[in-house]
Amino acid sequence: MQTRIWSKTREVVISDTGPTVLIGERINPTGKKKLQAALLQGNLDLVRTEAIEQVAAGADILDVNVGVTGVDEVALLPEAVRAVMEVTDVPLCIDSGNPRALEAALKVYEGRALVNSVTAEDSSLQDVLSLIKEHGAAVIGLTMDEKGIPQNPARRIELAHKILDRAGSMGLGREDVVIDCLNMPAAASPDTSATLISALTRARAELGVNMTLGASNISFGLPERSLLNGVFLAIAVHLGVNCPVVDVAKVRHYVLAADALLGRDQYMRRFIKDFRRRQKEAQIQQP
Amino acid sequence: MQTRIWSKTREVVISDTGPTVLIGERINPTGKKKLQAALLQGNLDLVRTEAIEQVAAGADILDVNVGVTGVDEVALLPEAVRAVMEVTDVPLCIDSGNPRALEAALKVYEGRALVNSVTAEDSSLQDVLSLIKEHGAAVIGLTMDEKGIPQNPARRIELAHKILDRAGSMGLGREDVVIDCLNMPAAASPDTSATLISALTRARAELGVNMTLGASNISFGLPERSLLNGVFLAIAVHLGVNCPVVDVAKVRHYVLAADALLGRDQYMRRFIKDFRRRQKEAQIQQP
Repeated sequence: MQTRIWSKTREVVISDTGPTVLIGERINPTGKKKLQAALLQGNLDLVRTEAIEQVAAGADILDVNVGVTGVDEVALLPEAVRAVMEVTDVPLCIDSGNPRALEAALKVYEGRALVNSVTAEDSSLQDVLSLIKEHGAAVIGLTMDEKGIPQNPARRIELAHKILDRAGSMGLGREDVVIDCLNMPAAASPDTSATLISALTRARAELGVNMTLGASNISFGLPERSLLNGVFLAIAVHLGVNCPVVDVAKVRHYVLAADALLGRDQYMRRFIKDFRRRQKEAQIQQP
Repeated sequence: MQTRIWSKTREVVISDTGPTVLIGERINPTGKKKLQAALLQGNLDLVRTEAIEQVAAGADILDVNVGVTGVDEVALLPEAVRAVMEVTDVPLCIDSGNPRALEAALKVYEGRALVNSVTAEDSSLQDVLSLIKEHGAAVIGLTMDEKGIPQNPARRIELAHKILDRAGSMGLGREDVVIDCLNMPAAASPDTSATLISALTRARAELGVNMTLGASNISFGLPERSLLNGVFLAIAVHLGVNCPVVDVAKVRHYVLAADALLGRDQYMRRFIKDFRRRQKEAQIQQP
């Protein structure tokens, strides 16, 4: 199964055999006070900087989210999408819970976007999937509904089926939907990662679709977040997550190692190339 | 399934629910010129140093191997076992391809040893399993025979069945045998890790026994070996490898992270404790 996303000049293919596609998470004000303040002033300089830095660190796609209380997303999200398109050429993942903001951003985006996200709620399915259809985009389907995120992994798979079925009935293909089984902080409960792993295992076996995951949530409130995220990403990639949303600079080397070991990187070329790049950077920093 | 190994004063339990048990790999002259030279002179100082350092780094069990051309293992292996018992109290994994050396070492070992290893060759099954029975030890079963290591994962599982069946017919329990599906350098062939992962997945589902793996082989000839080994270990632990043979100081943090995320470390106490220990060490090194 191949999901294709593109900008004006670059195409990214999400598949089970090619390299894991990394969606950069950093253009998102959640928990970032400086970015929140900038967005509230309509200042997109930090958005541009984060875009450039994430692409330099190896991001394949950039998530763009400007959702913070007090910001008019319908006005600002298309501006942010424009700003990122000015400074990079990677395809974008347009991220908002507001369908009108998604629509405004899709209108200015040049290419085929990934939209983040639709849930299994009827209103979301109706509003977001019709936008996806109209704009020829692809969409991330979150396995949650009006009752929240199910603790039961089987229920998360049912919700994924619901999203895929509705997408199908609206003329979208299974390759147009990327499923997110929803990562939660592991510190919150001892069952968190077991539930997620069970959902991922079932999703891969039953659904056969491409899968994303917000990789950084799992380590919330814990020390050594990059190590925990990187180790979990290796397991998630093995389980079929092929386009996670990550802090690229911090975890790309773990994903490249997993790809090299899992046969997704022929002759380990990407792993070795990235190793040399990081070695060179370290030499520059310590002359 | 629980495999219990002990020294005079410490017991280690290998199981699917408890923490991953780490077997320290460093008392092994393969590829180590200084250790080879010392062993050829009958000098066990380096063996003692490696034992102390590995236990300080968190090894739960120590592998003891003195196999180098020119060394009389029958004489030296029991001496090395004694030397390690003098300086540490962790249980030992007695490692030799020579059944007479294993016998001599088992005679001096105080506790219940893990023996590394038996293969599916008839002569090995006969010689080693009778020693295991006689000394009440446990044994690592390598999924290989006189034809070498099968490329086909199904054949590796057949050989594991053969070892387990023969052990059963000699009155040993399934908990007395720890299966090793055999890790090979990933750089040698693009199928290497796929074959191993397939064998591990089938072994877990079909055999239900405890599993070890020599974790460092996979990265042979590649840069950033600790990263590759650590990332592969996370996947292997997820697949049911619960007592890998590793370079403890280099990869323990990856395994602790995997255990924390996979529900094998209640309240992540071991992960957090180890993080604090390493943080303290880093502060001492950079005052």
